[in-house]
Amino acid sequence: MKAAQYIGNKSFDVVHGGAVAPGPGEARLDVGFVGICGTDMHIYHGVMDQRVGPPQVIGHEMSGVIAELGEGVEGFAIGDRVVVRPLDYCGDCPACDAGHSHICHNLKFMGIDSPGALQSSWTVKARTLHKLPDHVTMEQGALIEPLSVAVHDVARARLVAGEKAVVLGGGPIGQLIAQVAKGIGAEVLISEVSDVRRKFAEERGITTINPVDSDVNAFVQEWTGSKGADVVFEVTGVAAAVETMTDIAAVRGRICMVAIHAEAPAVNLFQFFWKELEMAGARVYEAVDFNRAIEMVANGDIEVDPFITSVDPIQDIARAFASMDGNPAGMKALINCGGAAEN
Amino acid sequence: MKAAQYIGNKSFDVVHGGAVAPGPGEARLDVGFVGICGTDMHIYHGVMDQRVGPPQVIGHEMSGVIAELGEGVEGFAIGDRVVVRPLDYCGDCPACDAGHSHICHNLKFMGIDSPGALQSSWTVKARTLHKLPDHVTMEQGALIEPLSVAVHDVARARLVAGEKAVVLGGGPIGQLIAQVAKGIGAEVLISEVSDVRRKFAEERGITTINPVDSDVNAFVQEWTGSKGADVVFEVTGVAAAVETMTDIAAVRGRICMVAIHAEAPAVNLFQFFWKELEMAGARVYEAVDFNRAIEMVANGDIEVDPFITSVDPIQDIARAFASMDGNPAGMKALINCGGAAEN
Repeated sequence: MKAAQYIGNKSFDVVHGGAVAPGPGEARLDVGFVGICGTDMHIYHGVMDQRVGPPQVIGHEMSGVIAELGEGVEGFAIGDRVVVRPLDYCGDCPACDAGHSHICHNLKFMGIDSPGALQSSWTVKARTLHKLPDHVTMEQGALIEPLSVAVHDVARARLVAGEKAVVLGGGPIGQLIAQVAKGIGAEVLISEVSDVRRKFAEERGITTINPVDSDVNAFVQEWTGSKGADVVFEVTGVAAAVETMTDIAAVRGRICMVAIHAEAPAVNLFQFFWKELEMAGARVYEAVDFNRAIEMVANGDIEVDPFITSVDPIQDIARAFASMDGNPAGMKALINCGGAAEN
Repeated sequence: MKAAQYIGNKSFDVVHGGAVAPGPGEARLDVGFVGICGTDMHIYHGVMDQRVGPPQVIGHEMSGVIAELGEGVEGFAIGDRVVVRPLDYCGDCPACDAGHSHICHNLKFMGIDSPGALQSSWTVKARTLHKLPDHVTMEQGALIEPLSVAVHDVARARLVAGEKAVVLGGGPIGQLIAQVAKGIGAEVLISEVSDVRRKFAEERGITTINPVDSDVNAFVQEWTGSKGADVVFEVTGVAAAVETMTDIAAVRGRICMVAIHAEAPAVNLFQFFWKELEMAGARVYEAVDFNRAIEMVANGDIEVDPFITSVDPIQDIARAFASMDGNPAGMKALINCGGAAEN
């Protein structure tokens, strides 16, 4: 088998190694495709070295085929095409007890806190697996994880058909949120500074605005007949968007906090009081979100193929990361790990 | 009739005037008792003069008796003991259309934007009235409005029996929130700097902590078995509490933003993401909150008499305001407007 190890400082070693036999409750997967996400880019830039501990195999957006099953695994068979929900929870903390194991106090994120998917053979707990329907391709399968993030975000915002939603930030997750929102019948506006990202959104039926040269609040008031946005997704992580989010939200509007704000920005709490705004943080996904994401792709409710910017073999992983680095045109780079080539 | 007019700069004139005959859909009330609230104190300090436009009769926490009914008022009779929900909505804006008339885009708050209750005779729209049961006293009736604020806050937080709630700030509204929360079966902690306010809370069965000399987060983690608080009410309006609120909230904890933050403070949005926190602003109340507040007092679910710090006749209104000014021991000063003395 081949494995791409992140070794620090924007560098990888592609090494040969032995497959790990699955223990009880585990499955060994032949890995098909692995997507590179924003967190992987952060790791690539070295800012998460202490948590990741290079050399380490990273990657967590993937599709694969079950190659081997450990003892006691039920509901899966060798040859099943699957995706992994890469969350390893403890099952024994207050969050798990309350039914929120996806944000367990002791959560290990596979591909960050433990070895990831960028290898031709990956051994995981079978409880992380979701089956792919036959007509969902392996390439599409690698998009299920980021799509599940978007599905989770839309669920946390309680968005429903007929509502108007503004997505602040048109990167891959913002664009997927917009597509999921559109897919359930909402009207969607993306605010995004990059021309190429606005064009990407427009081509998929989303209205866009450039917050640098337009007044987003004035536009939203006009667009909504002075009501304001029913839902705002904050996906930028920048302070200006935090100011915008409270301005544009309707009375009782819901804000979904998707972005990671490393600094605590000023938030207009007066608007929360005055308009009875609601805000819900959204992190990763639950099993139900994976099921829904798979269903949306299978039903054609959302088209994920346009999100695939490039596909490179595992030995070219360094080039794939470099090509996505600071590239607003890049939505999703896939790495072909070769383990499921015949599927 | 007598009316206490706020004339600016911490001053009142008590004037004699004629009662206003009720128009269609209106009722004229003989006013019993009127409570002084935090907003009235702001007005007293002159910071809202532009909005209030002195000379103006202020006051909005009241009880009264129907003295006269205009045409077309149904469901009420002369002699009914009532309280007023002092919200005058337009009925024709996006918020009203969406069922949120209590925070209408064009809301007029009676006693701020239009003449208030500090007069022996007050003419209001009958749609603002709620009847008082016979065994609720007129003095208790004047507490229904602030109690409805607390009921609304607890509803916005979706607090249920068995949960643990922290109230940041032990002023009148914080204390009422704590009592409502306790009344529905939650366990409650108040964080409050004032000794006298902590004592007031302790005497009514609420655990307290002084955030100046104790580590509130450490206490809450211990109190909740490392889970964190299910619900946090931010009722202080100070930046330090905004930092505390995100620290102490559990995974999926709900924060209710009750305080008015004139400045936009730094908010730890990373915690919103990481713990999937939720925050809901809460402003005034809905009809259902008034009904519930009246029911809680009538049923003895909450004891409001201890909140009555003083009762003064209307001619002593300046003294009543002065005695509450900056006085942490003062919970609720009532003004006897004399219009319903016989009840």
